[in-house]
Amino acid sequence: MKRNILLKISYDGTSYHGWQLQPNAITVQEELKTACERIFCEKISLNGCSRTDTGVHANEFCVNFCTSSQINVEKIRVALNAVLPPSISVNEVEDKQEDFHARFDCVGKEYIYKIYIAKVRNPFLCNYSFHYPYSFDINELNEVCKCFIGTHDFSAFCASASTVLDKTRTIFDCYLEQEGDMITFHVKGDGFLYNMVRIMVGTLLYVARGKIQADEISEIIESKNREKAGITAQPHALYLNKVFYEKGDLNEQTKIGKA
Amino acid sequence: MKRNILLKISYDGTSYHGWQLQPNAITVQEELKTACERIFCEKISLNGCSRTDTGVHANEFCVNFCTSSQINVEKIRVALNAVLPPSISVNEVEDKQEDFHARFDCVGKEYIYKIYIAKVRNPFLCNYSFHYPYSFDINELNEVCKCFIGTHDFSAFCASASTVLDKTRTIFDCYLEQEGDMITFHVKGDGFLYNMVRIMVGTLLYVARGKIQADEISEIIESKNREKAGITAQPHALYLNKVFYEKGDLNEQTKIGKA
Repeated sequence: MKRNILLKISYDGTSYHGWQLQPNAITVQEELKTACERIFCEKISLNGCSRTDTGVHANEFCVNFCTSSQINVEKIRVALNAVLPPSISVNEVEDKQEDFHARFDCVGKEYIYKIYIAKVRNPFLCNYSFHYPYSFDINELNEVCKCFIGTHDFSAFCASASTVLDKTRTIFDCYLEQEGDMITFHVKGDGFLYNMVRIMVGTLLYVARGKIQADEISEIIESKNREKAGITAQPHALYLNKVFYEKGDLNEQTKIGKA
Repeated sequence: MKRNILLKISYDGTSYHGWQLQPNAITVQEELKTACERIFCEKISLNGCSRTDTGVHANEFCVNFCTSSQINVEKIRVALNAVLPPSISVNEVEDKQEDFHARFDCVGKEYIYKIYIAKVRNPFLCNYSFHYPYSFDINELNEVCKCFIGTHDFSAFCASASTVLDKTRTIFDCYLEQEGDMITFHVKGDGFLYNMVRIMVGTLLYVARGKIQADEISEIIESKNREKAGITAQPHALYLNKVFYEKGDLNEQTKIGKA
C-alpha cells in the first residue's frame, strides 16, 4: 500500500538557490530528494508547500511525497537527518490521507523578517537579518502594519515579473515586535504574491526613513501600482515561519494585530 | 606622532582558518590587516590578544597596532566596517598609551562554549553550537565545573602538541547556564593552554555520558595526564567572549561560580 508522508522541515537558505529544483544550482528540494531516494530506495517526487528564493530561510516548510516503504515515521525522521546536510533538518514526519497535497491543501502561511537595528553590525547575524542602523519608531510602523490587514488587491506589492492573474489576498495578522536590538516583522495570510513580504518590508523601511508617509500606505495599496511601494527588501532576513492546513488556526490574531 | 590603537572586534570564524596569518589560507588577521592598510595607506602590523583555531568565533577579540594616521577613532570604526567582510566587525576603537600590547598586557580571558541539547538539530545553529541530543544534568556538571576553579597545573587539559613549559593557570570562574535548549559553558582565567577549553568541555560531556565519574575530575587534574581527560570538543561552538586588561575585572565571580 502506498503511503502519503508529510515532512515538516527547517533550513538555513544561505547556501541554497531556494527550494525549487533547478539545473546547475544546489537547491533544498534537490538535497531532500536525494536524501529521500537514498533512504527509500525508490524514485521520490516531492511536493513543496511553496517556493522560496535564494538565501531565504524556513523555520517551517512542509513537503509531501508518496512511498511504498513501511518504515515508521520516527525512523524516517532519524534516517533523513542522518543523511541530510546540517543546514536542513526534518523536525516532524506524519502519515497523511491519500489525497493530501502540501501545496494545494495549504490555507495560509506566516512569514517573519528580521531587522537588526544596532549601530554596529553583528557578524553572526549577517546572513540571518537585515542590518538597519537607523532610528526606528516601532509604534508608528505597527500602525502602518494594520493597513495591510484584511482582503486587498496587493498588485502594488507584487514583483512585476509575476504572471498571477488574481492578486487579491487576505492578511490575517501583521505586526512588528522588538526584542533588544532585533525587530521581527510578522505577517500571516491566505497566500502571498511573488516578493510580497519583501516589498511590504521595503515599504515599511521607506516609512521609517521618511521616504513614504505612514498615511500613504492605504493609498499605495489602492493604487495597485508597484512603483508607489518601497523597494524589495533583501532575501537573507526572510523566513517562512509557519504553514497552515486548518482554516481555524489562521484566524487567531496576536494581541498586537488586534489592538 | 605615532598612535597606538586598540580595536575590539567580533568575528564569525566559520570560514576562516583562525586568527593568525598563514600562507595559502584566509585568516581573520589577513582580512583585518588588508582593511587597515587600505584605510591608513601604510604598512600595518597587528598584535592580536590571542590565537583562535579554525572555526572558532570571537564575541570580543582585541588587537593593537601603530599608525601615523590622525583619523579620529569613530571614523576609523566606520571606515574599517565599510571595507571588512560582513563576518568581521569592529565594535570599539580606542587610543592607548605608547607601550600597550594586546597580547602581553592581557591579564585574562573568558571563553564560552555553546551546547544545544534539543532532540533535533537546528540548521541555524550548526556552525555556532555543538548538538548534544542526550540527557544533561546541569546541576551535576556545575559541581564538576567548580573543580576547575583555582590555580592548577592543567597539563591534563592541554593538547599534547603544545610546547609551553609552565602549564599552571588560574581559573577564576567556571559554570554552565541554561536558556531553553541552549547550555552555555563559561570559563574565565588568567590564561589558557592549547585546546584547554575544548578539552574541559569534552571532559564535561564524558561526565554527562557516564564515561568519566564526576568525582574523578580532581584526580584527573592532579594526574597531569592528557589521556585521563575527555576528548577535545569541536571548535565551531567555542567563542572568545571577553578579554581583560585590568586585574580588578577578573575577580568578579558569578553567583553560580561562587555558590
